Amino acid sequence: MNKEDKYATLVLFGATGDLAKRKLFPALYSLYCDGYLPERFAVVGLGRRSLTQEDFYHHIKDSLEAFSRYDIRPEDWEGFIQRFHYVQLDINQASDYEALASYVEKLEQRQEINGNRLFYLAIAPGLFEPVTFQLKEAGLLQTKGWKRLIIEKPFGHSHESAEELNDKITQVFKEEEIYRIDHYLGKEMIQNIQVIRFANSFFEPLWNNQYIASIQLTSSETVGVENRGSYYDKVGALRDMVQNHMLQMVTMMAMEPPSRLKAEAIRDEKVKVLRSIRRMETEQEIQEHVVRGQYEAGELQGEGVKGYREEQNVAEDSSTETFVAAKIMVDNFRWAGVPFYIRTGKRLPSKATEIIIQFKSMPYLYFNKDGNLAPNLLVIQIFPEEGIHLKFNAKKPGTEGSILPISMDFCHDSTVGINSPEAYERLLNDVLEGDSTYFTRWDEVSLAWKIVDPIIQSWEKSEGIPLSTYKAGQWGPTEAKELLEKDGFHWWQVFGEK
Amino acid sequence: MNKEDKYATLVLFGATGDLAKRKLFPALYSLYCDGYLPERFAVVGLGRRSLTQEDFYHHIKDSLEAFSRYDIRPEDWEGFIQRFHYVQLDINQASDYEALASYVEKLEQRQEINGNRLFYLAIAPGLFEPVTFQLKEAGLLQTKGWKRLIIEKPFGHSHESAEELNDKITQVFKEEEIYRIDHYLGKEMIQNIQVIRFANSFFEPLWNNQYIASIQLTSSETVGVENRGSYYDKVGALRDMVQNHMLQMVTMMAMEPPSRLKAEAIRDEKVKVLRSIRRMETEQEIQEHVVRGQYEAGELQGEGVKGYREEQNVAEDSSTETFVAAKIMVDNFRWAGVPFYIRTGKRLPSKATEIIIQFKSMPYLYFNKDGNLAPNLLVIQIFPEEGIHLKFNAKKPGTEGSILPISMDFCHDSTVGINSPEAYERLLNDVLEGDSTYFTRWDEVSLAWKIVDPIIQSWEKSEGIPLSTYKAGQWGPTEAKELLEKDGFHWWQVFGEK
Repeated sequence: MNKEDKYATLVLFGATGDLAKRKLFPALYSLYCDGYLPERFAVVGLGRRSLTQEDFYHHIKDSLEAFSRYDIRPEDWEGFIQRFHYVQLDINQASDYEALASYVEKLEQRQEINGNRLFYLAIAPGLFEPVTFQLKEAGLLQTKGWKRLIIEKPFGHSHESAEELNDKITQVFKEEEIYRIDHYLGKEMIQNIQVIRFANSFFEPLWNNQYIASIQLTSSETVGVENRGSYYDKVGALRDMVQNHMLQMVTMMAMEPPSRLKAEAIRDEKVKVLRSIRRMETEQEIQEHVVRGQYEAGELQGEGVKGYREEQNVAEDSSTETFVAAKIMVDNFRWAGVPFYIRTGKRLPSKATEIIIQFKSMPYLYFNKDGNLAPNLLVIQIFPEEGIHLKFNAKKPGTEGSILPISMDFCHDSTVGINSPEAYERLLNDVLEGDSTYFTRWDEVSLAWKIVDPIIQSWEKSEGIPLSTYKAGQWGPTEAKELLEKDGFHWWQVFGEK
Repeated sequence: MNKEDKYATLVLFGATGDLAKRKLFPALYSLYCDGYLPERFAVVGLGRRSLTQEDFYHHIKDSLEAFSRYDIRPEDWEGFIQRFHYVQLDINQASDYEALASYVEKLEQRQEINGNRLFYLAIAPGLFEPVTFQLKEAGLLQTKGWKRLIIEKPFGHSHESAEELNDKITQVFKEEEIYRIDHYLGKEMIQNIQVIRFANSFFEPLWNNQYIASIQLTSSETVGVENRGSYYDKVGALRDMVQNHMLQMVTMMAMEPPSRLKAEAIRDEKVKVLRSIRRMETEQEIQEHVVRGQYEAGELQGEGVKGYREEQNVAEDSSTETFVAAKIMVDNFRWAGVPFYIRTGKRLPSKATEIIIQFKSMPYLYFNKDGNLAPNLLVIQIFPEEGIHLKFNAKKPGTEGSILPISMDFCHDSTVGINSPEAYERLLNDVLEGDSTYFTRWDEVSLAWKIVDPIIQSWEKSEGIPLSTYKAGQWGPTEAKELLEKDGFHWWQVFGEK
């Protein structure tokens, strides 16, 4: 890649917002420190508030002090902060966009940036459509460089609304210019899945229904809804976590080897997985395969916590799910018969994102005459710990025939000693390089909605599937346990918990 | 098993010898401390010297102080030492055996041991035959209990001599009464091989020529011949290490799953492997597949050491090999095409017994476009460290596509915290229990000789394969390197070395 191709202006909507503060400024700073930020690179921060440049600098400094992986060193800070420019903008005011357009043009001239523009909409999804049209109207998209749009989840709240939104946006940006962030795809260990699978002859032959019995994917949080009650209560865990992150993890695990390790080839394979996922249509199918739960008051890490319905900005009679467990079947030759069990929720006993691959049991022979031999597990720890663990059986030293399940461990932190980069660092750099591998393509988004839509609809019916409850601090309702037990499985203890 | 079946008298020939002192007394003491020694159990130590009981006790105490895994605690010592009895015996004197017979009988009566007798011949192999006949003559084998014979290597020095010896011994003891010790088979990690293979669905499917490229077996020593020159110079590494230990390790790795995990079923499978090993008959075949070397003066661990021919009791023009490397092909459906590379020698850079399984390389795709991706390795560390390691490839954190070979480790010592029992403890207990799984059956010994005999014969011819030399402190002669290089492999660094 030509280095000029990376020179760009980042037009950041929501520069005074939460995402910018927690994730984007720290990510940009890390990229700068690690030498990934191009030499010529400007950030135009937009917000409705009136801020001086000094105010904006302070805001960024606060953000870094609170959230950056790197300490702020004076010699880095100067070179970094001079790239930032604050522009006040009323998101509905056409004239503000015109002013922005001329601001950006002048900046580009001054900094010799050849018109490459990155538009990051770190704002409410309801604004995606009007903003993109305003950008077009104001001529900001008429540039001799490339233009790219970054948007965050949620992308719609159903297949219909997502399609509507996509229709609008694609009138302004082409599909290949749109970078839909699913920050799970930026995580080190999620990206490691394809290396584990395709760089190791040890793992590759076992990656199918001949050797794998089931796969469990957990993404658990200990927090409740915090200050997001009014948003979350309209959304719920299925839309918030399953439609995007959980299904994306399933595709990374399940996809066939792509023809090349390139964005479109990989995303083609992920789409094939989503197409192969068995659709649940009838209420009975949904009830059998999906469990929804909502937390009640309980105890977590030794402290009493209140129930979901008592949270701020949550309806007293809310039926929003804060927990989902589901059994997902991927009906293709590789995975026929292998359940993918997913679970995600709030107020669970520990914070962890993990994938556990359970291998088939050994024949009822030798060491497994009674069928009690522990199955082999491959554990991929994604968050907050990063690691790979293999649980297997060995001889208990000093005994005649006792078998001991033992664990081989590889952890990034201890072994390599690298402070693993944040997802947003990778993803921002990928956008600058025009690499859309770890962004979700429209057909992925669309298919994921088609998978979850019937579930949402079934739940919304008044005679629909009942909402189960669980005490805060427990692993969801008992139905989540039963979901696996009826297949002869059980949830493995989250590895990070021990 | 009935507990009386284990009550026994151990008749120990060579009770003042080196093996008894270094291995057998410490092993018996550990068995005692761990509660494996039967309640009624007597040891009759035999030696040519005149010793009082007190002398003998002191001798045993010295042995434990120098070599025992366990400290001597007074409360254990009393109960332990009272089982020992010393009897002076001239090995050629028939009357001494008669005296022994009546001594043992009285002892059995006094201690209510029902005639089970264990004869351990910790003496020179040339004495196996006369001693067994004397035992018979003196009536020591006419007992209402069981009788078992334990003998140590070497069992013959060629197929012919081994067969001759076996013919004699089996006139006195039945095959199932003979326990031929190969102490490698008593090692924790050697016994673990069958657990790794047959208790893990993760390993079992990969254990064949579809997934394994080659297997390397190393048993290296840093010491020279020490005070064994006169013995070793007549024997050499091939007879001393390959005919027994190295081939036994090959059989443990290569054998098919047995019909049951029982001695005869397992040994049947090991025999099948030995039968499948491709015999090298012509001088050319031998020269292509086997390397012999002898160490010259060199440097080891920072110290200068002398060459083999300068060692005490070694002929100045000795052509005895102190190093062997060989490529062994197991011509059956599971292993066709997979070379088993073995190497063993003295004065090598480190002391280690290890098995390294090298998996096939990935296709020339993705991360392996240039073919430089490190292959996956499964390392079984047998001695002195005990552990299992898996070397595989993962993403280097913070990079786009860099791959890093990393290692998952399981080590007995650190993880389980058990002071792993010595081989002799296991094996002695096995004999007491009548379990011959980890002892070599005659057909194994016989086949192993048939494999090495043509090599020895070829070497012994004056126009035979030249003897290569290596400097002490190096991994054998360069020919050992070339042996693998011509197949596109190389010796992996011994894991314990890093």
